[in-house]
Amino acid sequence: MSDFSKELAATRDPAKRSWLASANVPTCDFPIQNLPFGIFSEARDARPRVGVAIGDAIVDLAALRAAGHLELDGGIDADEREDVFARASLNAFITLGRDAWRGVRMQLSMLLDAANPALRDDAALRERVLVPMQSATMHLPVDIPGYTDFYSSKEHATNVGSMFRDPKNALLPNWSEMPIGYNGRASSVVVSGTSVRRPMGQLKLPDHERPIYGACRKLDIELETGFIVGRGNALGEPIACDDAQDHIFGMVLLNDWSARDIQQWEYVPLGPFNAKSFATTISPWIVTLDALEPFRVAQPEQTPEPLPYLRHAGQHAFDVALEVRLRPDGTDCATTIARTNFRHMYWTMAQQLAHHTVSGCNTRVGDLMGSGTISGPTPDSFGSLLELTWNGARPIELDSGGTRTFIVDGDELTLAGWCQGDGYRVGFGTCVGKILPARG
Amino acid sequence: MSDFSKELAATRDPAKRSWLASANVPTCDFPIQNLPFGIFSEARDARPRVGVAIGDAIVDLAALRAAGHLELDGGIDADEREDVFARASLNAFITLGRDAWRGVRMQLSMLLDAANPALRDDAALRERVLVPMQSATMHLPVDIPGYTDFYSSKEHATNVGSMFRDPKNALLPNWSEMPIGYNGRASSVVVSGTSVRRPMGQLKLPDHERPIYGACRKLDIELETGFIVGRGNALGEPIACDDAQDHIFGMVLLNDWSARDIQQWEYVPLGPFNAKSFATTISPWIVTLDALEPFRVAQPEQTPEPLPYLRHAGQHAFDVALEVRLRPDGTDCATTIARTNFRHMYWTMAQQLAHHTVSGCNTRVGDLMGSGTISGPTPDSFGSLLELTWNGARPIELDSGGTRTFIVDGDELTLAGWCQGDGYRVGFGTCVGKILPARG
Repeated sequence: MSDFSKELAATRDPAKRSWLASANVPTCDFPIQNLPFGIFSEARDARPRVGVAIGDAIVDLAALRAAGHLELDGGIDADEREDVFARASLNAFITLGRDAWRGVRMQLSMLLDAANPALRDDAALRERVLVPMQSATMHLPVDIPGYTDFYSSKEHATNVGSMFRDPKNALLPNWSEMPIGYNGRASSVVVSGTSVRRPMGQLKLPDHERPIYGACRKLDIELETGFIVGRGNALGEPIACDDAQDHIFGMVLLNDWSARDIQQWEYVPLGPFNAKSFATTISPWIVTLDALEPFRVAQPEQTPEPLPYLRHAGQHAFDVALEVRLRPDGTDCATTIARTNFRHMYWTMAQQLAHHTVSGCNTRVGDLMGSGTISGPTPDSFGSLLELTWNGARPIELDSGGTRTFIVDGDELTLAGWCQGDGYRVGFGTCVGKILPARG
Repeated sequence: MSDFSKELAATRDPAKRSWLASANVPTCDFPIQNLPFGIFSEARDARPRVGVAIGDAIVDLAALRAAGHLELDGGIDADEREDVFARASLNAFITLGRDAWRGVRMQLSMLLDAANPALRDDAALRERVLVPMQSATMHLPVDIPGYTDFYSSKEHATNVGSMFRDPKNALLPNWSEMPIGYNGRASSVVVSGTSVRRPMGQLKLPDHERPIYGACRKLDIELETGFIVGRGNALGEPIACDDAQDHIFGMVLLNDWSARDIQQWEYVPLGPFNAKSFATTISPWIVTLDALEPFRVAQPEQTPEPLPYLRHAGQHAFDVALEVRLRPDGTDCATTIARTNFRHMYWTMAQQLAHHTVSGCNTRVGDLMGSGTISGPTPDSFGSLLELTWNGARPIELDSGGTRTFIVDGDELTLAGWCQGDGYRVGFGTCVGKILPARG
């Protein structure tokens, strides 16, 4: 093991503790082993800039670098490097490449280590570079040049196929051969906390000859993760499946809001459009693949064996516990309506990226790739209300009283996700959105 | 009529002539009535910058402004305005707004007028601001934040439905109710002249149980136009159909290259993905709606009458003659394989934009919206080889000898389009791409 590899491995040491007490709470999403990247601003300095989450605080990387405590190497010239942390998106930093990401990770891991006095014992420096998370506003972490959404959960595809096509042949023949995907709308990807307006659109009611124009009546979530491309590929030069993970910067939680009634009427033959394009919410912190490494597990067996361009050696799934919570307007009581795990996904992120580019399609730094709805094998592990309530036939009981089939105005939906370690967790934080009434 | 409206109308006067003789040739695409915008560079100055086509030359707007011959108003501060013409995309200029586009159009119309001596009689100035088109390299005219492709030709949708579904019910019920569209891949939109590599992918052969991995065997074009969004809308705030044309900067030709065999296997249920994402070619010159105004005609009658949000007063189709030419490798002889007209389109650009945003989806300056394949009513007016050869059943005879069903390696495909005026034409130039062999 090289020194670099040893240092990188040390950042993931489960025994490592920070001098920041909040980071050492076992249920904290942001222990010293995590160190996810995001874009934040605050009342005292409203400029959006790069931060790293630690415990209940954010390390201001622009301030840390200005204070001379953060070195930065990378493939671009010094002028370009100067201000990558003072920008309103992570794209410039990500473009520096994996060695730069890892270099920053290792420095932060050392600076925040319980045994390191440099920041721990310098109150004035801490005041300059540590921002309380609760006083910060989080922004979209990346400019997203392209957003693609996959459909890679076998359980989800089977459930949907059973409901809308044929329960005996729920999976279409192409599903088992490739990670089916489609292009989503990048412009309407918003950061967690952004309220979402119920969409208007065409609805085809069963007793009407023609569609009506109206507010969506079957508004749904899709529990997904997304990955952020860290290194693109040129047009005409596919990414090999075995190389694909080197092109991934990190992961977020993703809520692919879906208007089921609009979708059902519009989606043949070119796929979902207005049913999805009104909003997609992602969590603000990008958890790097370096932080997720200890939670790598084997993907489910794939039968039939994929075509050679979709084969990869090693383990490519990740053990990420996932939850969906629903909180009606006017109550503090949220009901956990689904619990599942990212490890159930049939197609891996590497396979998704290899398939996406096999035609020669290029990808770019900041591209967002959604996993598709993550449903598990049991009815309480389904990743959408469509499945949880079986298209409205089986309402869910809420802890605050009442029931739900689809989302009601004022409902706040929260996705949460974390990798459970021994005495700590590497968490994603939450991905939250509240539904506002339609414009009408 | 205000002075501004009169001046604008004067730019379209069919009798107007330029002192640049090449602009007055009746078959020239770029007479003084056109003045389309693009991004160019040249050997003596390799910086991509904004130009306007006139005859066989390009007016270098950055040089013209530097020389003090181009005023610029607009909604942003003076510093921002300074260099909008010295940039590698039109986005900053377009963002200035329609009054700025029109102001530049009117100034150029006067400067290039046969009667105006300012540039005509100043050889040194002409040398600085006029670039021969043949010495220039054209670039993608806009950074494209989002690319959407519609499916708005009734003849095309009917042909495809007849071939792959049911000739008796070729049009799906939703088709007559909305401009069906899907999100395309913006990253792989390339400018005319860029060679395109035949894509690899999954093909399902009729006599095989499983798909194979191989080079596309049914590579096709789709003859389309595209429009460029000139003014976006905020998330949650739809564009009304009657306002939509004010959000359009101009139009280009668009070739939506399509791998029919990949498409047929992958497209259910989420629509085309790898079959389209390897490349989309657009022409380099954006012809403004102001230049197209004299060619506005009534759209086809729509039955049933669209829902209210898709209704607009006035005429919203444009009379644009369109051609597709195929030139095999190693010959100068191109065969015109299709002739049609944009006026046949069932759904208008305004309806497309209103439908795209009715859910609250936001659009941004530079967004590209493809019309969908433009097929006319007769077999020689179909906009794809799929339709022209009826999925390969009726090969096309080439003037150079031989036949074609789908595209052969080395074939160069050219789209051309123009509005025919009385003694002049407002043309789009060409949209060209040559097919390279697959990577294998």
